[in-house]
Amino acid sequence: MDKRLQTFISEKAPIIDAELNHLIEFEKAPSSLKESMLYSVNAGGKRIRPLLVLAVLDDFDTKSDDALKVACAVELIHTYSLIHDDLPCMDDDDFRRGKPTNHRVYGEATAVLAGDALQTRAFGILASLEQTRPEQIIRLVALLADASGANGMVGGQILDMEGETATLSLPELEEVHMHKTGALLSFCIEAGAILSDAQEEELSQLRKYAKNIGLAFQIKDDILDVTSTTEQLGKTANSDTASEKSTYPSLLGLEGAQQQLEKYHREAVECLAFLKKENSMLKLFADYIVQRNA
Amino acid sequence: MDKRLQTFISEKAPIIDAELNHLIEFEKAPSSLKESMLYSVNAGGKRIRPLLVLAVLDDFDTKSDDALKVACAVELIHTYSLIHDDLPCMDDDDFRRGKPTNHRVYGEATAVLAGDALQTRAFGILASLEQTRPEQIIRLVALLADASGANGMVGGQILDMEGETATLSLPELEEVHMHKTGALLSFCIEAGAILSDAQEEELSQLRKYAKNIGLAFQIKDDILDVTSTTEQLGKTANSDTASEKSTYPSLLGLEGAQQQLEKYHREAVECLAFLKKENSMLKLFADYIVQRNA
Repeated sequence: MDKRLQTFISEKAPIIDAELNHLIEFEKAPSSLKESMLYSVNAGGKRIRPLLVLAVLDDFDTKSDDALKVACAVELIHTYSLIHDDLPCMDDDDFRRGKPTNHRVYGEATAVLAGDALQTRAFGILASLEQTRPEQIIRLVALLADASGANGMVGGQILDMEGETATLSLPELEEVHMHKTGALLSFCIEAGAILSDAQEEELSQLRKYAKNIGLAFQIKDDILDVTSTTEQLGKTANSDTASEKSTYPSLLGLEGAQQQLEKYHREAVECLAFLKKENSMLKLFADYIVQRNA
Repeated sequence: MDKRLQTFISEKAPIIDAELNHLIEFEKAPSSLKESMLYSVNAGGKRIRPLLVLAVLDDFDTKSDDALKVACAVELIHTYSLIHDDLPCMDDDDFRRGKPTNHRVYGEATAVLAGDALQTRAFGILASLEQTRPEQIIRLVALLADASGANGMVGGQILDMEGETATLSLPELEEVHMHKTGALLSFCIEAGAILSDAQEEELSQLRKYAKNIGLAFQIKDDILDVTSTTEQLGKTANSDTASEKSTYPSLLGLEGAQQQLEKYHREAVECLAFLKKENSMLKLFADYIVQRNA
């Protein structure tokens, strides 16, 4: 990983972790519920979504204490979706990032409710921003709802489930991913841009960047699933092959998937030209997404 | 039921139903998800929460097209909570309002996701209000998050589950209800008051009113569970007795519960004195909550 990105992550990740914990602990709630929420929040994610929010601010050379809260709000949405995805009625996963899944520790009922409450908290956090103009806060709430709801992440999860029993075409597969993971990643980029008071034309470029890294992210996930061991991934490897799910490697072959990954990476980086920076943080993130091993 | 309230409900309920459908149908989403969301939205609720929002505006003689949207947002939160509460891992209910529960029709995975997406939609709707001042919209988002999250409805659901295995004291029972059902009812009243530009002192009285009718509502539910048939209720009667759950009748006896119900009703009505109306709509609602048969 690039040195500058490494420094950025090792500087920001602990701040994100601390704020996430603060935002949940701060809330009044029955202790068992709070414990279950905190368990998944602290289950060791890479914090890619919150880091992306902060990376945009870094590239725009802007500062906003609210950015950290927005970053955490997205991470809570992501965390809630993982808890619900892991449920026995969904993917029925016993482990996530090498640790027992929420429902394995707290039971299904509490896991459902912890997910529910994490989603609610995300919107509550946006409404609590203090340094952001009210119109912008409302825009963030609208965007987060759109990115995470029926036309975004949750809709993508439905498409993904329905796709499991069929061979998807490449456009269908991309439709799944643009909803299931892409929408929330796009929110991160757009939210960072809004907090940086980006121009409309810049926003449009950043939306294209987000779409490209979103798809690149998913291709890399699919490739890693085929080429890594369970130990390396911290989750069951080869799970896609086992379930006969449509993936980039199954549709394009491993080499075709790798080429597609590089294409999206290139197109993502091209969208960053307006920043006029040799190695912008978003460029380094795009590189990392392509090169990561887990 | 009072004639004026009857007219109010028969006038407003169809408008609420139509708007709820519009707000979901309008959204882009996979058709199976949308169908599952609409199924529960149209499963025949009494619409008490949205009606309460509109009743506040009626009592303040204010008009706001946004009020209908806010009313629908609360109903979507309520609907999502019912879908998740009915899941096999929670109350495991096969019927709700005389119809098969969401997961019985669409399967558990889709039911979980439909609930998730309905919650998201509620916040998205608040962010889409067009006639309300931005500061007020943000206040509504914050209030709804507080009322429905870990310190509100979802927290109450956890307390309720934990209470099922123990005999609760009366204060503990009321703590459960004030969270599980009271918080969202309070939101309805407070949201209506905010949209009516109520004064702080009026808000404070209305919060007390909401707390009292919330508890009255629950006592009446408990009493009906003991005294009604399954057919009358549209859900399994005597379910509380069967599960040995703490209820007002089990703690106070049927007569004691009835007295407590009347006390809360009286106190609710007293909070409405500032309206200087003989028969305010909120007064009629308090009467209805006490007198209803289902």
